[in-house]
Amino acid sequence: MTLERWRKITEWPVMLAALVYLAVYSWQVLDPGTIPPGAASVVLQGIWLLFAAHYAVSLALAPAKGSWFLRHLHELIIVALPMLRPLRLLRLLTALNILHRVAGTALRGRVIVYVTGGSFLLIYVAALAMFDAERNHPESLITNFWDALWWSVVSVTTVGYGDLYPVTLTGRLIAIALMIYGIALLGVVTATLASWLIQQVAEVEEKSTAATVAHVDQLREELAEFCALMLEQTARHR
Amino acid sequence: MTLERWRKITEWPVMLAALVYLAVYSWQVLDPGTIPPGAASVVLQGIWLLFAAHYAVSLALAPAKGSWFLRHLHELIIVALPMLRPLRLLRLLTALNILHRVAGTALRGRVIVYVTGGSFLLIYVAALAMFDAERNHPESLITNFWDALWWSVVSVTTVGYGDLYPVTLTGRLIAIALMIYGIALLGVVTATLASWLIQQVAEVEEKSTAATVAHVDQLREELAEFCALMLEQTARHR
Amino acid sequence: MTLERWRKITEWPVMLAALVYLAVYSWQVLDPGTIPPGAASVVLQGIWLLFAAHYAVSLALAPAKGSWFLRHLHELIIVALPMLRPLRLLRLLTALNILHRVAGTALRGRVIVYVTGGSFLLIYVAALAMFDAERNHPESLITNFWDALWWSVVSVTTVGYGDLYPVTLTGRLIAIALMIYGIALLGVVTATLASWLIQQVAEVEEKSTAATVAHVDQLREELAEFCALMLEQTARHR
Amino acid sequence: MTLERWRKITEWPVMLAALVYLAVYSWQVLDPGTIPPGAASVVLQGIWLLFAAHYAVSLALAPAKGSWFLRHLHELIIVALPMLRPLRLLRLLTALNILHRVAGTALRGRVIVYVTGGSFLLIYVAALAMFDAERNHPESLITNFWDALWWSVVSVTTVGYGDLYPVTLTGRLIAIALMIYGIALLGVVTATLASWLIQQVAEVEEKSTAATVAHVDQLREELAEFCALMLEQTARHR
Repeated sequence: MTLERWRKITEWPVMLAALVYLAVYSWQVLDPGTIPPGAASVVLQGIWLLFAAHYAVSLALAPAKGSWFLRHLHELIIVALPMLRPLRLLRLLTALNILHRVAGTALRGRVIVYVTGGSFLLIYVAALAMFDAERNHPESLITNFWDALWWSVVSVTTVGYGDLYPVTLTGRLIAIALMIYGIALLGVVTATLASWLIQQVAEVEEKSTAATVAHVDQLREELAEFCALMLEQTARHR
Repeated sequence: MTLERWRKITEWPVMLAALVYLAVYSWQVLDPGTIPPGAASVVLQGIWLLFAAHYAVSLALAPAKGSWFLRHLHELIIVALPMLRPLRLLRLLTALNILHRVAGTALRGRVIVYVTGGSFLLIYVAALAMFDAERNHPESLITNFWDALWWSVVSVTTVGYGDLYPVTLTGRLIAIALMIYGIALLGVVTATLASWLIQQVAEVEEKSTAATVAHVDQLREELAEFCALMLEQTARHR
Repeated sequence: MTLERWRKITEWPVMLAALVYLAVYSWQVLDPGTIPPGAASVVLQGIWLLFAAHYAVSLALAPAKGSWFLRHLHELIIVALPMLRPLRLLRLLTALNILHRVAGTALRGRVIVYVTGGSFLLIYVAALAMFDAERNHPESLITNFWDALWWSVVSVTTVGYGDLYPVTLTGRLIAIALMIYGIALLGVVTATLASWLIQQVAEVEEKSTAATVAHVDQLREELAEFCALMLEQTARHR
Repeated sequence: MTLERWRKITEWPVMLAALVYLAVYSWQVLDPGTIPPGAASVVLQGIWLLFAAHYAVSLALAPAKGSWFLRHLHELIIVALPMLRPLRLLRLLTALNILHRVAGTALRGRVIVYVTGGSFLLIYVAALAMFDAERNHPESLITNFWDALWWSVVSVTTVGYGDLYPVTLTGRLIAIALMIYGIALLGVVTATLASWLIQQVAEVEEKSTAATVAHVDQLREELAEFCALMLEQTARHR
């Protein structure tokens, strides 16, 4: 079996498993009383094993193992950090492949869909993980899920009021990941706007300055016409 | 009646209604003692009904209802959220259509006018809504309108000192909307500057490198001249 | 006398007056005990009158008064706000015209020099004005000049720790001006970097894809050569 | 000996010395009990002398001393500020020359490697220097290295919660350097994304609009073909 075939077959099951992981994890964090802790733990561990197996098989099937390993380092990080349990949820971002299908082929449109979808997912997941990491710490400021969600938005926009901030190591690692995403988000928003604006301005101006294919083609047609005329002339002359 | 005609006829009345809404809402929030609460409430509800009717008629007149619905989702959100009363004020941004007329046709100039006008309006409206949402909460930090205005500017620039921040759910939703606008604002400012700078640098350089229409046209003229000369020659020869 | 001649003659005296204003204002704020308050006040008021007269004469000399008024609105704002004494210092930015001379003709180089010089000047002036505005308020957090300078840098970079923030109205107006400059600063830095990067990448690529003047010129030469050859041929033939 | 040869010969020893400096400084700051203070001090002073000598020799060898001095001002600043001991560590950034070799030739790839490597190094060095500067101050908030690291990331992303901030002068100077880098970082991330996006969009569009060398060459070939045909015709005719 080739790597592409393996990835294609497993794409939907992996996405489904990620969604189940998010659902069970959300339930466990948000309403811990109503879920048997053993069951939730078994499901989460099972899906983790599934992802690890998926990664191992993918690596085994890759023709150029070294290059595949380097280009899929993010998958390894997601699989290999069991002590940072909440961060594992970032694997959920693979669910964005669905959005990839919904969006058309226009590059900027696809960037907008990815960034919007990714931001919503990441803000939710970061809030969930932060709430899970902070709620049992005695000095914690983030004591309910709505606070965690509010903190998540304030951090990703780089506003950072400082009314709420993480105090645990896990919480700070989650915050660092979110802040780095925030910088990238600012960059993507700006880049998309700049790209659109530059193109719009260029379109108005290029019409009057740049030599387009149309101009060269027109020139070629005139040349061909003249060529035909000349050949006709010399032939008639002979 | 076509959709365009309906939108054209109703454009100015809708804008006027939005301005009245802002005025009455400002009065009600900033000086609640001098306005009969019943009267203010009737005017605000009436304008809300008017906007809802305007949206419904627009949708009914649209030839492709699905596509119109998707492209005007923001109008539905503005009309359909009665529990988030202050956020409804965002419909005021339709007043920017006036600015659209004032500004010339240059794209970058229009972007600057939109962003400046939109920022002033949004900062004012967000401060008003925030003050309305927070002032009756016991733990509120934003206790007068000037504080709300200060908070609004600090948030939209993503500085976020943290001396003032919302504590109610409505306040936080308003803050989230404002922070998202802040990210977009940063993006638009950067994109406009980048577009201007890239164009200025390109103008200096393009003169010496890119093939312009002028060059191709000159070539065509030379070709036409040669063509005429050749035809004359062969004709004389015959 | 024409407007250009007037502006050219008065450029250096106005700049000198602005520098004297900054020096006297700095002295008055930083070491109020060693300066006779009457003398400082007289100098500052005198320079203010000088600027007001300069603005009035410029407006009187302008051929198109309306258009000049609109394009020099920032000068009016600087002259016309006596109640916001510290903000008047922003007129110091006219001193940047010196930098304009130092920098070469390359646009990006000039942008870098302007932004760096303007940032240093604005951070210092904002700190000075903030210290002057806040130091006598009982709840003030900014109680010495180094604190004001630190606050100024933290605000202009949009970091906003919130350890220090203005509490007076004047202080908040200064902060708003500085934060708006901070957004513009972020935009200019990004735009300059983007413009540089896009040009570097384009230079590598354009060599192999875009039709340059050189190509069209080469084509024209070949055409001229062919034209001469044909004319020679037909002439010899006759 | 020429300047280039001197710089080439000393490149690796200087880099090694910088790494030793970082290692000894880290050890001295993070675990002061286990290192003889005299030994650490001797090594750090020795490396400082080495860097000063390297700078002096470079300047002496430079053919155009004035221009070299201006373009290497950052080296002088790193060497010449003994009272700001921690800031001297910024010389470590010369170690990025290693990364320069690892990265390929693609400009954007090199920018990404530089920015990622430089960010990690600067965040670590700033945290180390901040911890060293703040830990002995009675009002200090940054009392362990993990706090300093957390503060460093929060500052460089311009989030600035304000839970931790420097209170000493040295600490504030380090923070200012880090915040300026944060602004530049935002700019570089955005510029790289914008450059990539603009190129991707341009590639799709240029195929259908801009006159490429291929088009002009095709035209030239057709002209040459016609030229040969005409010459053949007239020759046969004669």
